Amino acid sequence: MIAPTKCQTSESITTSTAALIAVGKEFYQRNWVLGTSGNFSVLLNRDPFELLVTESGVHKGRLAPQNFLTVDSTAGVISGAGKPSAETLIHLSILAHRDAGCILHTHSVWSTFLTDLHSESDGLEIEGYEMLKGLSNVSTHEHSEWIPIVANSQNYYDLSLQTNEILNANPGIHAILLRRHGMYTWGKDILEAMRHVEVLEFLFEVMGRKQSCAGNSR
Amino acid sequence: MIAPTKCQTSESITTSTAALIAVGKEFYQRNWVLGTSGNFSVLLNRDPFELLVTESGVHKGRLAPQNFLTVDSTAGVISGAGKPSAETLIHLSILAHRDAGCILHTHSVWSTFLTDLHSESDGLEIEGYEMLKGLSNVSTHEHSEWIPIVANSQNYYDLSLQTNEILNANPGIHAILLRRHGMYTWGKDILEAMRHVEVLEFLFEVMGRKQSCAGNSR
Amino acid sequence: MIAPTKCQTSESITTSTAALIAVGKEFYQRNWVLGTSGNFSVLLNRDPFELLVTESGVHKGRLAPQNFLTVDSTAGVISGAGKPSAETLIHLSILAHRDAGCILHTHSVWSTFLTDLHSESDGLEIEGYEMLKGLSNVSTHEHSEWIPIVANSQNYYDLSLQTNEILNANPGIHAILLRRHGMYTWGKDILEAMRHVEVLEFLFEVMGRKQSCAGNSR
Amino acid sequence: MIAPTKCQTSESITTSTAALIAVGKEFYQRNWVLGTSGNFSVLLNRDPFELLVTESGVHKGRLAPQNFLTVDSTAGVISGAGKPSAETLIHLSILAHRDAGCILHTHSVWSTFLTDLHSESDGLEIEGYEMLKGLSNVSTHEHSEWIPIVANSQNYYDLSLQTNEILNANPGIHAILLRRHGMYTWGKDILEAMRHVEVLEFLFEVMGRKQSCAGNSR
Repeated sequence: MIAPTKCQTSESITTSTAALIAVGKEFYQRNWVLGTSGNFSVLLNRDPFELLVTESGVHKGRLAPQNFLTVDSTAGVISGAGKPSAETLIHLSILAHRDAGCILHTHSVWSTFLTDLHSESDGLEIEGYEMLKGLSNVSTHEHSEWIPIVANSQNYYDLSLQTNEILNANPGIHAILLRRHGMYTWGKDILEAMRHVEVLEFLFEVMGRKQSCAGNSR
Repeated sequence: MIAPTKCQTSESITTSTAALIAVGKEFYQRNWVLGTSGNFSVLLNRDPFELLVTESGVHKGRLAPQNFLTVDSTAGVISGAGKPSAETLIHLSILAHRDAGCILHTHSVWSTFLTDLHSESDGLEIEGYEMLKGLSNVSTHEHSEWIPIVANSQNYYDLSLQTNEILNANPGIHAILLRRHGMYTWGKDILEAMRHVEVLEFLFEVMGRKQSCAGNSR
Repeated sequence: MIAPTKCQTSESITTSTAALIAVGKEFYQRNWVLGTSGNFSVLLNRDPFELLVTESGVHKGRLAPQNFLTVDSTAGVISGAGKPSAETLIHLSILAHRDAGCILHTHSVWSTFLTDLHSESDGLEIEGYEMLKGLSNVSTHEHSEWIPIVANSQNYYDLSLQTNEILNANPGIHAILLRRHGMYTWGKDILEAMRHVEVLEFLFEVMGRKQSCAGNSR
Repeated sequence: MIAPTKCQTSESITTSTAALIAVGKEFYQRNWVLGTSGNFSVLLNRDPFELLVTESGVHKGRLAPQNFLTVDSTAGVISGAGKPSAETLIHLSILAHRDAGCILHTHSVWSTFLTDLHSESDGLEIEGYEMLKGLSNVSTHEHSEWIPIVANSQNYYDLSLQTNEILNANPGIHAILLRRHGMYTWGKDILEAMRHVEVLEFLFEVMGRKQSCAGNSR
């Protein structure tokens, strides 16, 4: 059902690595990958499956080419040293259900704050903002975007199963939030995934400021 | 009634393009054009009318010379590839009513937040701040600036008609806000338009913080 | 009574100009001199009196050597083109009462917000913060700093007279706030004045956030 | 009981100095060492004890090699001009109780705000955030981190005695807060200490925003 992602497969490891290093620097400046938080991947080839992914435990603002590995569809290492990101299973789950070429996981103050505030809710509804048009296939601010919130866990296999369910049940979503943890979003290529990060982090800040406001807190 | 804008017409496309690329980078750093939000234009010539405008759907922090087109007074493309910004009609409406040489549309968290908070109001009154003196023809902090808020729409023709009405009815205004969308401001040249953006975004943040404050929320 | 400022008088115009250009860039990045707000001066010589001061109406993030003038103790232009900052009289008033070598005027969101919030008060008391030790001659966090707030005005002669009175009445102060306008601070040289700006803007943000906080608003 | 820190002792003064200069620049951009706040140290050798530490009263965003000294375990100067940071005794206290190679003291708005807000409490509990996993030896977000808050003082000998007590009583902690002053954290090397700063400052911002929020203030 899902066609091979053509635009990405021809991108070499070198090009994608350089692009993700730049993404890391930009996101670090924006406070979206502090500490060793965050992880990124680019689908190099769908068949045979080969995914470029950041190494576990490294700083995303100071990535070097040796901080990248390639893995197969079962997270088995094809090339590179070190351990792939502990959350690679979530990346694989997204790629199994979406025709995506790049997955970016950020960990911002506002997404942490919002999912903490909505601690009883299983998602966040964002509606009526022009910025939503920056999401793929959204053409009006009247769009209502549902962003599921999943309870955080250190059992990544479990999280990947939940991701499967959520992606099956919500065909139109562009992102998933882990509570008090951060966001996963994706795009057909690195630029689209970055755009989704910018759009959603902007909206999280707007929502966060709105809900912090005394006269409007809900 | 409106005289040709002399200082701008002699600026070449190359110079204006380079200046708008720099504006985009600066505004991106300041979170005013995240995703693909925002659009910019410079009036190259009033008669015959020629407007330099950013391409639709591109990232304003990474503009390249090929992301600019020139259009005539009916938004018809004179030169350049791609589609001009979907909001070009609003730029044309402003230029038809103001002796401006540059129009900048930003999309900040604070303008989105404020127009969302004032969801029943048709404008924002800002009064008593020294920063207001950064607006052209304002010489005292005692100035009261009215910033009309227009309901957002995907019908840009409609928005341009509303812009016409607002500009006719409010001769002294320096900007227009679109609700949950962002701001349009203009100036006789790029530097003045940039100054207006900085002045107004500063004031939106002050107003936003003031109205978020428990003891002052309205 | 006030001795000539030795360390500054030997600094050439060129060196001081370059240093103030760098200050402007840094402060612009920090949102302290948006639009054309802010102005800076360095005392080149006390006798005969010669003050280097920024030109009126220019952007402080993009200062060039031609945006500086030198004036005498009556604000008369000694060298340079353009008009000296409209607020030069306040600089002169400070120099007449303090043994300062550099005066920096910033215009931040937090100082604007705070002086707006305390709209009935003639000053701000800041006490108990370690950061206060960054102010000259303050050696303990138990220090209580009084920062007078003056009503804003476009009559700079009047403001300079008020500045005289305040400086006479408050020998220990390090800064003066203009309501909904910004801060004046000074130091024996550029580095000390910059340090005072950083210290006070930090404290304004802490105070602003504290007073925005529902449980603590006053 | 505490083994010599091997990875650090081989780092030369030159390398560590260059690394701390870079830390200072990064932290200054992030507003964590404004004014002359903050101080940094690197353990060069445990036996004989030699600690590289920043000079007292210098700006951490503009450190130069001459702003560093080395001291022995009694804070006696081994090499370098000027005075070592006034808070060197606290660094020595931490090194006497922890197998650390680097100590970083930051002074942020959010840590100042939070310790001010919790003015009656002797510590801050942070629990349930994924970001906690960026702290050494923490492997789950379910971790609860206790961060002791010590009353600020200008008597550094006294503060170092309190630090001794706290470190003895709380074997698992990663940082200590001084009220209305800032944070001390440490790591086996500069990178780990920086990571701890990023992780904790992120969490302070989340906690600060949460507790500023009307619906959640405590």
